[in-house]
Amino acid sequence: MSDPIPAVLDRLDAGQSAALDRLTALLRIPSISTDPAHAGDCEAAADWLVAELTDLGFEASKRPTPGHPMVVAHGGAGDRHVLFYGHYDVQPVDPLALWTRDPFDPVVEETANGPVIRARGASDDKGQLMTFLEACRAWRDETGSLPCRITVLIEGEEESGSPSLVPFLKDNAEELRAEVALICDTGLFDDREPTILSSLRGLVGEEITVTGPDRDLHSGMYGGPAMNPARVLTRILGGLHDDDGAVTLPGFYDGVAEVPQEVMEGWRGLNFSAEAFLGEVGLADLAGEKGRTALEMLWSRPTAEINGLSSGYTGAGFKTVLPSEARAKVSFRLVGGQDPARIRESFRDWVLAQMPGDCRVTFADHGAGAAATMTMEHPAFDAARDALGVEWGMPATLTGGAGSIPIATHFQTILGMDSMLTGFAKSSDAIHSPNEKYDVSSFHVGARCWARILGTLGG
Amino acid sequence: MSDPIPAVLDRLDAGQSAALDRLTALLRIPSISTDPAHAGDCEAAADWLVAELTDLGFEASKRPTPGHPMVVAHGGAGDRHVLFYGHYDVQPVDPLALWTRDPFDPVVEETANGPVIRARGASDDKGQLMTFLEACRAWRDETGSLPCRITVLIEGEEESGSPSLVPFLKDNAEELRAEVALICDTGLFDDREPTILSSLRGLVGEEITVTGPDRDLHSGMYGGPAMNPARVLTRILGGLHDDDGAVTLPGFYDGVAEVPQEVMEGWRGLNFSAEAFLGEVGLADLAGEKGRTALEMLWSRPTAEINGLSSGYTGAGFKTVLPSEARAKVSFRLVGGQDPARIRESFRDWVLAQMPGDCRVTFADHGAGAAATMTMEHPAFDAARDALGVEWGMPATLTGGAGSIPIATHFQTILGMDSMLTGFAKSSDAIHSPNEKYDVSSFHVGARCWARILGTLGG
Repeated sequence: MSDPIPAVLDRLDAGQSAALDRLTALLRIPSISTDPAHAGDCEAAADWLVAELTDLGFEASKRPTPGHPMVVAHGGAGDRHVLFYGHYDVQPVDPLALWTRDPFDPVVEETANGPVIRARGASDDKGQLMTFLEACRAWRDETGSLPCRITVLIEGEEESGSPSLVPFLKDNAEELRAEVALICDTGLFDDREPTILSSLRGLVGEEITVTGPDRDLHSGMYGGPAMNPARVLTRILGGLHDDDGAVTLPGFYDGVAEVPQEVMEGWRGLNFSAEAFLGEVGLADLAGEKGRTALEMLWSRPTAEINGLSSGYTGAGFKTVLPSEARAKVSFRLVGGQDPARIRESFRDWVLAQMPGDCRVTFADHGAGAAATMTMEHPAFDAARDALGVEWGMPATLTGGAGSIPIATHFQTILGMDSMLTGFAKSSDAIHSPNEKYDVSSFHVGARCWARILGTLGG
Repeated sequence: MSDPIPAVLDRLDAGQSAALDRLTALLRIPSISTDPAHAGDCEAAADWLVAELTDLGFEASKRPTPGHPMVVAHGGAGDRHVLFYGHYDVQPVDPLALWTRDPFDPVVEETANGPVIRARGASDDKGQLMTFLEACRAWRDETGSLPCRITVLIEGEEESGSPSLVPFLKDNAEELRAEVALICDTGLFDDREPTILSSLRGLVGEEITVTGPDRDLHSGMYGGPAMNPARVLTRILGGLHDDDGAVTLPGFYDGVAEVPQEVMEGWRGLNFSAEAFLGEVGLADLAGEKGRTALEMLWSRPTAEINGLSSGYTGAGFKTVLPSEARAKVSFRLVGGQDPARIRESFRDWVLAQMPGDCRVTFADHGAGAAATMTMEHPAFDAARDALGVEWGMPATLTGGAGSIPIATHFQTILGMDSMLTGFAKSSDAIHSPNEKYDVSSFHVGARCWARILGTLGG
């Protein structure tokens, strides 16, 4: 039997218009997960996907959760078994006045950079998840079946904190576990270079409240003898970084590995300018650890950030208050093998050790997730590198993710599998903002990429 | 001629009831200066005082200002010339529901600690200023005249920032200048020990805003390479005190003198417990300069305090924002010869020297006033020590004022004279709070004190 991939790709090329019609139908459903008024629309989006997946030969069902339903589908056969993950819910559309058209009445617009489909969710994540389903459709239409065993999981709460996700993964671990997860919710580097995420940073969120006097005092009555908790807090947090930008917490860098030479080579080859990256937000100098590149600081090095500070009087004018308490929200981005629980403990111990006898401190846990570092052992990674390189006309690079995508960590910790994250979004897609769009080329080339990847995995 | 003082004191004793009636009449006028609805009441209080002073033989007048009027009066004759200062305006009364009776319908109540007169302004400052006028009345009634030359200045904006005061002092400096100012707006130490203030701390109010990126960033997108202004701010302010509680600004202690031995002796003799003082607000340890006593920290040592901190997200929950700016309100309490302008400049220079290239800082000036240190050369100080000692049954102590009373500084800088500050308020008077009161004993013994002081000055 000859290689079916060329014929599958031809089908995708020939079927572009019908594919856009299907995406349009899904985009018409205003499945805003955070707004209870749209709960029925979330159900409708799940129903639409169940019908679509059933039409593609999957055994598909809508699965209830305490929130919006999950869509789970099983299809194909063979030794290779992949899980595809996406989400059908979208962000709210406010401010509506800034949209050039109804966010749920999608249309293909011609722009200077080619045709785009404009609607809420066009890029995040309906357009991206449909690249995968269109690839499945082309395979089914051409060969009568899917090229490998595929489980599909599409959630409806990604834009509202995924409250049902972890319990659902735990309750259905056996059913959902595959060799690898395929996730299409990221973008092209510099809007043109295909990438695969080899790691994602973890996150520890922490809040500390330092209390001194049991009430706000007048600084003219008590200033001098009475300890000011804002003095204590700034003193402690002011020591969180050393002069070279490194985090001073004991043991903070335990489990932080150097980036493999070949990955660093790839990063150096990216069209990335630290000057331009910082210049765009009014900055010029790298603030992280001395001697590290900007991409290391973003992708492979942990950080400590103060996300919020409050104490005393912060309104207009002046009040000579000696505040009773001072608060800070602090977060740590984690990499590699850093243990979130140990980082939190180290921070708390470090703060406690610096507290003067007269102040008390309380801590609030604002969640944590370990970094996800992909082993990249599954053949899906190589398949994706090849497919992306051919389709986008330049080699795919392994990049790090500066942010935290909890689903990848959950798949690792709950289902024990890597996630192969790739995607075709562009910075101009305006996800979460008015006038979101997805390039028709992203949609089409994306589907071609998945068709190749599935073909390689099934071959 | 025999010493008229005993007879003057007898008159005060015999006239207690009529004196309380006069105070009651003044307290009935709701002269709340901060509330424009009470502007007419401020006029009425000024009119009442002009009539009262005229009745006492003063040449008294109500003098317009852009705000509420001043009352100025001249009376008596002789070589000694003193200026008495008080204020007829009062604080607002909210929350009214917490008052046990109408705040402007005063009555003498019997309490476990003796009779009190309860009303807004009973202590601050109508009751206190009336102690002086009652002393004048007793002298006039007994001897037909005032014992020395007296100028009276009573303002109506003390509780609302005294916006008209400095221009009025400058415009009328020749008319108002005397040898010394007598001010009755302070209290008894430990609610029983008579004191004279030998110094008041000054104040510099400053606000700093550190700006990094030109907008709030996502810490998952920029955390690492992008400088966080909250890190810069805490780093800088965390270094404002050294390990021994001293302020680290260069030149900060220039002009700060040691307290004279005899004054320190007096402080040691006061019934003051640092433990109790701090314990009342939930603290235990002295936070100021190592090796200094609590009273030194309050009265003779300068301080630096953070009065407000704000940056990033401070609401419930967590936001991984990398804030664009971080702000702090900072104040310095000054003593002795510290120059407010130099302290501000030193702080700004010190902050600027620590700014990383990528951050900008702006400063806002929230006012300044030098400390007031009394030379205590005028005989009014000795006269007051003697009078207070006799009347209260224990030696009067020279104390410092931890707060800042701008009028004393203005009298020093604009009119070139010391202020002799004494007063008879108690901590239980609840000034600025619901159910303000003044002890009838404070009112009566206070008047006896002024009668003695005036007699000594006129003798």
